[in-house]
Amino acid sequence: MKKLRRSARLVDMTQHLLAHPHTLIPLTLFAEQYGAAKSSISEDLSIIKEAFEVQGVGLLKTVAGAAGGVKYIPQMKTEDALDFMRVLIGQLANPERLLPGGYLYMSDILGNPSTMAQIGKLFATAYADKNVDVVMTVETKGIPLAYATATFLNVPVVIVRRDNKVTEGSVVSINYVSGSSKRIQTMSLARRGLAEQSRVLIVDDFMKAGGTLRGMIDLLQEFRATVVGCGVLVETTADVSERLIDDYVSLAKLQDVDIKGKQIEIELGSFFERENGIEGSN
Amino acid sequence: MKKLRRSARLVDMTQHLLAHPHTLIPLTLFAEQYGAAKSSISEDLSIIKEAFEVQGVGLLKTVAGAAGGVKYIPQMKTEDALDFMRVLIGQLANPERLLPGGYLYMSDILGNPSTMAQIGKLFATAYADKNVDVVMTVETKGIPLAYATATFLNVPVVIVRRDNKVTEGSVVSINYVSGSSKRIQTMSLARRGLAEQSRVLIVDDFMKAGGTLRGMIDLLQEFRATVVGCGVLVETTADVSERLIDDYVSLAKLQDVDIKGKQIEIELGSFFERENGIEGSN
Repeated sequence: MKKLRRSARLVDMTQHLLAHPHTLIPLTLFAEQYGAAKSSISEDLSIIKEAFEVQGVGLLKTVAGAAGGVKYIPQMKTEDALDFMRVLIGQLANPERLLPGGYLYMSDILGNPSTMAQIGKLFATAYADKNVDVVMTVETKGIPLAYATATFLNVPVVIVRRDNKVTEGSVVSINYVSGSSKRIQTMSLARRGLAEQSRVLIVDDFMKAGGTLRGMIDLLQEFRATVVGCGVLVETTADVSERLIDDYVSLAKLQDVDIKGKQIEIELGSFFERENGIEGSN
Repeated sequence: MKKLRRSARLVDMTQHLLAHPHTLIPLTLFAEQYGAAKSSISEDLSIIKEAFEVQGVGLLKTVAGAAGGVKYIPQMKTEDALDFMRVLIGQLANPERLLPGGYLYMSDILGNPSTMAQIGKLFATAYADKNVDVVMTVETKGIPLAYATATFLNVPVVIVRRDNKVTEGSVVSINYVSGSSKRIQTMSLARRGLAEQSRVLIVDDFMKAGGTLRGMIDLLQEFRATVVGCGVLVETTADVSERLIDDYVSLAKLQDVDIKGKQIEIELGSFFERENGIEGSN
C-alpha cells in the first residue's frame, strides 16, 4: 500500500478505467491501492467522470451498495461519430477503390488500428446495453472490426472459419448460399469455440445481399445462441435484388457504383437513422 | 478554447496520450486545447510521466526544440511480463488443449482482447525502437496478435492471404513448403497492400519448423522490405528436425508433447533470454 497524491491517483485511475471497460471496479480496490479514503476516491471519480463526459470518452457509472463500485462505459458522441464517418466516407468514395464485383478496396482502412478503434467504439456504443457475451465474425476482413468492438465491450471474439478443415475437435459446419454469387459455401465453428446460449453480436466489414451474415445467424442456432445484433461497416444496395437479413445496422451505405464512369455514391448508413437511437443528418 | 483545472487536464491528457502511442504531440496543442501556459502543461506531463513509470504503463519522452513535444512509448515492465506469461503458460499447459499434429487449442486465448493487448504490448516493448512501419501476419489466427501489437506501435497491419484468389488488383503470390507438413502452399499479398521498402515486423501465433514465417520473409523480398523482427506467441521444439528461420523471438516454448500421457511441457520463450534485452529467469 503506497500513498499517492491526488494528481498521480487521477492519472492512474484514468488509465486503469480505460483499460477495463464494462468492468465493475470496487471503490475499495482503488482505496487500498492508493492508501486513500473512499471519500477521496469518490471525489477523484467525479472529476474523471466529468472529464470523460466533456471529452466524449464515455460514461462512468457508479453502482451503490456493498457490491458496488464504478464502471467505465465507452460512449462515442453522435457529433464525433458523424465527424469520423464523414471523413471515412470521403476516403471510401475514391473511385480507385472499385474492385470487380462491386466491392471496394478497404484493406488500408481495415489495417489502420486507430480507425478500427473508432469503429469498434461506435459499435460498442450502439450495443452497450445489450449484455453482449461475445462478438463474432467470419474470417478474414471482419476480424479487426470484431476485435476493436470486443475490446470496448470487454468480451471475447469468436471467429468462424470459411472451411471445415478446422482441427479443433468437434466442429459445427453449415452450407450457405452467398447471396451475391449464388455459390454454395461452407463455414464452421468448433463446438468448444462458443458456449451454448451466448448473446452474440455479429460484425462484418461488407454486406451485399447478406448471405454471409445469414449463414452466421443459422450457424448460431446450432449453439442455441441469441443474436443481439449485426453491425456492418459498409452495406451496398447496388445489384442487390433481395436482402437475406433485415435486422442489422450499417455505418455506410454504398448506393451506386458506376465502374465505367469511375463514380462511387456512398452515404451514412442505417446506424445514423433515428430509430437506432443515434440521431444524425442522413 | 476552454480553461480546465489541472485535475481535469490530467485526466484528459492521460487518455489522449494512451490513445496516441508513438505519436509526437506538441506541447502547444495541449496548451491551446486547455487554455493553459506551456509551463503548466510541462508540470502536468511530469506528473503523468512519473505515474506511468511507477505503474508500468510506459515512458513519456520529451523532445525539445521548436518541433518538439511529448511522446508516449508503451513499455511493459519485465516483472509484469513474467507475471503475465507465467499465468498464460499455466493456461497453455492444460492437456485438454492438445490437438492432432502437436498443435495446441488456443482460440479462447487468442479471442480474449485483454490477453491480446498484453501480448501486443510485450511485442511493442521489444520492438519499440526498431522504427517499425507495419506489422504483418498471415491469416487467420495471427491477426489478433498483429492488431494488438500494431495498436501499441501505432502502425498499420498487413494481412497475407493463404490463397491467391485475392481480388485486389495486382497480387504477389509465393509458393512455400510448410516445414512440418511438407506440403506446398500459397500465400499472397496485393501489390497495393504494402509500400516498397517498408520496415516490417512479422508476428504469428504458433511456429513449428518456421515454414510459414519463411514464406512471409520470402514474399517480403518482392516488396523490397526490411524484416525488423519475427515474434511468435508459442514455438514448439517437438518433432522439429530443422528450423527454417533463425532470427525470431517466442514468448513461450513448447518443449515436449506427450499425446498418450496427456502431458504438455511448456516454458518461457526466447524473448525472456538475456540477449533479447529483457531479462528474466528462464
